Amino acid sequence: MQQPVEARTPSGGAGPEALRDPATLRRLLSPRSVAVIGVSAEATRFGGRTVTNLVNFDGPVWGVNPKYAGQQLHGRPCLASLEEIPDSPDCVLIALPREQLMPALEACIRKGAGGIIAFASGYGETGLPERVAEEEALRARCREAGLPLLGVNCLGMVDHVRKAGVTFMPEYVRMTAPAGGVAITSQSGALGYALMQAAERGFSVCHMTTAGNATDLDVCDLAAYQLSMPECRAVALAVEGLRDGRRLLLLGEAARKAGKPIVALKLGRGDAGAAAAASHTGSLAGSALAWSAAFRRAGMVEVEDFDALLETAGLFAKAPQPKAKGVAIITPSGGAGIMAADHAEALGLDMPQPLPETEKVLRAAIPDFGAPRNPCDLTAQVASNPASYDACMEAMLSDPQYGCAVIPQVYSHHATTVGRMESLRPYAAKFGKPLLIAWIPEQLEGPGAVHADSVPELILFRSMRRLMRAVQLWQEFYAREEQGAPERPAGLGDALAALSGQGAVLTETAAKALFARVGVPVTEERRAATADAAADQAAALGFPVVLKLDSPDIAHKTEVGGVKLHLGDAAAVRAAFAEIVAGARRHAPEARVDGVLVQPMARKGVELILGGRRDGQFGPMVLVGTGGVQAELWKDVALDIAPVTPARAEQMLRSLKGFPLLDGFRGAPKADIAAVARAVSAFSVLLAEAGDRIEEAEANPLIAGEWGCLAVDGLVKCS
Amino acid sequence: MQQPVEARTPSGGAGPEALRDPATLRRLLSPRSVAVIGVSAEATRFGGRTVTNLVNFDGPVWGVNPKYAGQQLHGRPCLASLEEIPDSPDCVLIALPREQLMPALEACIRKGAGGIIAFASGYGETGLPERVAEEEALRARCREAGLPLLGVNCLGMVDHVRKAGVTFMPEYVRMTAPAGGVAITSQSGALGYALMQAAERGFSVCHMTTAGNATDLDVCDLAAYQLSMPECRAVALAVEGLRDGRRLLLLGEAARKAGKPIVALKLGRGDAGAAAAASHTGSLAGSALAWSAAFRRAGMVEVEDFDALLETAGLFAKAPQPKAKGVAIITPSGGAGIMAADHAEALGLDMPQPLPETEKVLRAAIPDFGAPRNPCDLTAQVASNPASYDACMEAMLSDPQYGCAVIPQVYSHHATTVGRMESLRPYAAKFGKPLLIAWIPEQLEGPGAVHADSVPELILFRSMRRLMRAVQLWQEFYAREEQGAPERPAGLGDALAALSGQGAVLTETAAKALFARVGVPVTEERRAATADAAADQAAALGFPVVLKLDSPDIAHKTEVGGVKLHLGDAAAVRAAFAEIVAGARRHAPEARVDGVLVQPMARKGVELILGGRRDGQFGPMVLVGTGGVQAELWKDVALDIAPVTPARAEQMLRSLKGFPLLDGFRGAPKADIAAVARAVSAFSVLLAEAGDRIEEAEANPLIAGEWGCLAVDGLVKCS
Repeated sequence: MQQPVEARTPSGGAGPEALRDPATLRRLLSPRSVAVIGVSAEATRFGGRTVTNLVNFDGPVWGVNPKYAGQQLHGRPCLASLEEIPDSPDCVLIALPREQLMPALEACIRKGAGGIIAFASGYGETGLPERVAEEEALRARCREAGLPLLGVNCLGMVDHVRKAGVTFMPEYVRMTAPAGGVAITSQSGALGYALMQAAERGFSVCHMTTAGNATDLDVCDLAAYQLSMPECRAVALAVEGLRDGRRLLLLGEAARKAGKPIVALKLGRGDAGAAAAASHTGSLAGSALAWSAAFRRAGMVEVEDFDALLETAGLFAKAPQPKAKGVAIITPSGGAGIMAADHAEALGLDMPQPLPETEKVLRAAIPDFGAPRNPCDLTAQVASNPASYDACMEAMLSDPQYGCAVIPQVYSHHATTVGRMESLRPYAAKFGKPLLIAWIPEQLEGPGAVHADSVPELILFRSMRRLMRAVQLWQEFYAREEQGAPERPAGLGDALAALSGQGAVLTETAAKALFARVGVPVTEERRAATADAAADQAAALGFPVVLKLDSPDIAHKTEVGGVKLHLGDAAAVRAAFAEIVAGARRHAPEARVDGVLVQPMARKGVELILGGRRDGQFGPMVLVGTGGVQAELWKDVALDIAPVTPARAEQMLRSLKGFPLLDGFRGAPKADIAAVARAVSAFSVLLAEAGDRIEEAEANPLIAGEWGCLAVDGLVKCS
Repeated sequence: MQQPVEARTPSGGAGPEALRDPATLRRLLSPRSVAVIGVSAEATRFGGRTVTNLVNFDGPVWGVNPKYAGQQLHGRPCLASLEEIPDSPDCVLIALPREQLMPALEACIRKGAGGIIAFASGYGETGLPERVAEEEALRARCREAGLPLLGVNCLGMVDHVRKAGVTFMPEYVRMTAPAGGVAITSQSGALGYALMQAAERGFSVCHMTTAGNATDLDVCDLAAYQLSMPECRAVALAVEGLRDGRRLLLLGEAARKAGKPIVALKLGRGDAGAAAAASHTGSLAGSALAWSAAFRRAGMVEVEDFDALLETAGLFAKAPQPKAKGVAIITPSGGAGIMAADHAEALGLDMPQPLPETEKVLRAAIPDFGAPRNPCDLTAQVASNPASYDACMEAMLSDPQYGCAVIPQVYSHHATTVGRMESLRPYAAKFGKPLLIAWIPEQLEGPGAVHADSVPELILFRSMRRLMRAVQLWQEFYAREEQGAPERPAGLGDALAALSGQGAVLTETAAKALFARVGVPVTEERRAATADAAADQAAALGFPVVLKLDSPDIAHKTEVGGVKLHLGDAAAVRAAFAEIVAGARRHAPEARVDGVLVQPMARKGVELILGGRRDGQFGPMVLVGTGGVQAELWKDVALDIAPVTPARAEQMLRSLKGFPLLDGFRGAPKADIAAVARAVSAFSVLLAEAGDRIEEAEANPLIAGEWGCLAVDGLVKCS
């Protein structure tokens, strides 16, 4: 049920299509009445299950199938046609094959239905042009008529508040958990329903939608609707691709306004998709990185693992904002405490030791083979003594250093574990700090686990690894600062005007001139067509100098021997000129060679890569990374959607493993990080404003030192 | 229940204590009769549960407690003392507090018991010297009397074959799954029992032991016993620390002989424990790395996550050896197929496309909105048509490229999922290829999941991430080659003799002389006490040269300006001499300065680090990594227990991210990797043979080029 991702570029000028107004989707997604076209008498068929899944829905349900006209099917009246329904149905589910979909759609339009759900497959996902066209026709007709369509190639939706299981999946009736705070939106139908099955064990879900081919409504429209539901506290979003990735930013905006976090997973992470780009920066910017940047920009919480999606959304639905960074670990088992500390330490979470007054209480309560520390090993002895246990819990949760408590549950006991979970609830309420239960036993649906999942005060994870990572995401989410718009450099207009007059590839001189216009510092340079001219220019600039091949046809000069460094006198310059020209002739006999560029040797500093490329879904992206000859080995890059502010650019720099190189590494002077950040920001504004017109750009290397920064080479591919 | 890890060094000369002969542990760990000293009438107390957990055990069980003498407790006879038992009990469980343990132990010795289990806490784990001594006395007495002891501070054991739940944990009687192939050994009692709870949902466990303080038997003895059980197919081992890590290698040897894999988890990963070493190589060799090296050397399969321990052991217990590297993904859901491919691709697993004849069958069976590829998206349509489904399964499993099939189960249906799992079993049997079920629904104990876990032909993972990682571990395990013993370098005896005559720290000249003796190539060098002497030596060696401070008191010369490169003539040498001496005087006025070492400039090449340190648990370790000034930034190192063969040394080199630097990076000549591997091996033999006598050593940098390799500097700390 994967949606084929079109490599269509988000258009440069026009913004993305606005998200659908949730009010226009309410009849479809929170229906008060449902009609099923293609209803079946067989309970196990799609057209049967769609009715049996509505058994607890309290609105009218009509079956439509001439074969059963006038009968009751699964306790609901069946009519010969949609026209015969006495009312206009909110949601019409069409359980018919592809060939019969369009006539049914027309009937829905005539009847004034609130929206339709189409299961049928075999459209654009086949890759056949006629089927793509057929799907386009559906989309066009729905939009013309103002009839929202869920699907095609989806498996429907569930409004768990109204017990409307409008899906052909079996056994929605088993999902007896009361409606709760997490809404699920999935592009894949099967994965959406797999998540929904958490409601069979008590997890708090309020709504679930599957987008399928997203013929009309995509996951952004669907999640935005869920944000508008009063029951919804957080959205779990599983997405494969979007026609226009910028809609994700609109959804992020909606979530921010609603004050409801979105926890998101990108599926299809490894598919490089786009052909390998010509330069290094392009090849480093994989698509999963672009999605991560987009989730961050959209203010969403990204998880990288399906296993973590629902649990993490549960945390965000249940937990208040952190009151402090410290993580308290309170355990009856030393082994579980070690496990908790391992994961917390690996993520760099803060695990402060208890304050003296806290420790005093712990020391009085805990026997000598326990640990009055953090992790706090209560021992089984304290865990089975209510007074001691309460004293320790009160002490740890009162300690202002701690913003949450992690409580491993190491075994599941049918007779007592529910009671233990119940006994924890008041602490969460009293201290306003989330209690995170790490469920360790392999008995995964022990009654204690199911109970903890279902109550609002406890947050259950069936993995210590996922729990600690979710704590980190929770802390990071509430520590985020919103990025404003970066300033427009003074020379931006000139730069964009210069760009429009250019051809397909700007090599060094032109590229650096472009960068200089927006305020990225670049090295000085002189052109020289002959060896003598090169020697004269070198003398004028001052030795030592660099000579570089000047050819519009050769992008990677180093590989043809086209760069000579440390030239100390005129003779060295003349010799280097001859070698460069000979090298170019040998490696690329067809290439035009204009001569060389003469530059002063760059000042000492740290080599960075500054690059940009256009992503098929998110438009212009900016990348900064550790440079030098080993750059491709370490792949140490930070990527974001352009433009970025200098503050965000500095965050990107600080996120690099190579950042210490800029920060006084082994006694070297600290680089002017603010200057580098300004250059990254200016470069990103150029990329963003150029939109479709720049395919790829790089300032590589960008040398940074205590004296500022300087782009030593440049390349821009226009489109 | 963490065992305090003593920082005791594995002794240099003597080997580790041999593993206990499993035959001597059989009465204790697979008992035919059990006595419980301290039995209680209350079913919920430790002394009660230990009896109620034996309800399905078919041998005699005696309670011992004068309070209930002559009564029946929980259906078993209770006697006043151990002496009154008519037979000599195999296993005596002592449910008494610490203070009463020693007298009970003496009674067991007198009675000729097969072994004892002691729950009591409060011994060495308190850190109190008198308690440590008390535990030592227990150990000494048990060993003297030949009475094996499980514990102290443990929670017992389960022989699931005999239904002997010799533990105080509740509800062993719920674990009704038949005994199966996985044995569990855990240092932490709570974590061991948490794993054991898998038997409540059908997972195949045959035995479970908890070592606690490992007063007498440690996890190696216990796992070795389990390997001897005919029911055991694989061991899941959770360890925190060992008194002598080399016993792990003995256990690995036992597993190899038994042909049964051990899947191992190290808890307490983040604890650096040992104080930070003085040089870079030391600080890079964290303890988790040392454990990983030890697991590898022991031929064990390491998992880094508790969540993965039992599932991965289940794979090893159920799966035959791989017949091919290719992973087939067969799914009714496109979304699950994408998820599977994401994880497989991230790990670099092989996912070949079907052969033409396979594809032909798929294409005939799968509708146009599916995918006759790998991942093979059958669609729900094929999944519900037995004939088509069978055709696709037969075709994919017949394809010789595939060594296993990953089958996501995307929803759990009470009525049909067990049947679907049943229908898969014959394929596993027919093709001899493991079928790995990726259980996607959030209904974690759906009847299909529990069923798949309990049958021998299906291998269930409740996480696609863990499944794919386990496939990788399975492929790697069976692709391993055993390492033989490396050759002893001709000069080893001389080197060891030279070592014994030395003081605490060997600086450059002495260290390199030592390395040269075992065959590690080193740079030539001359000492010079004056500037004039330095100039003369430089002239003799040939310019350009390097000058280095010669001081026994200064380990890191660079940091005091003690290294000057590229000195092209005598004047430069004299100036450099003066600067070096002045720098040393300024930074370390107390240090003895002998003058300088004069060396020819090293040949061009790639900088590596070659180092060694002694690990508290595993003895001498060898480390090789990418060097250069940025080494500490990228932390790109490979670590192993010394000694290593040249073949293993080459594997270590190839595992480095920086390996491409040696392998013709960007057109540079390839380094002589065999020469580097020989140097690493020779260095490691020196470390291993020196044993306790070398605390830490490094050849840093080791320059490698097409011409071979050369240690440019060296340092050895003796102890």
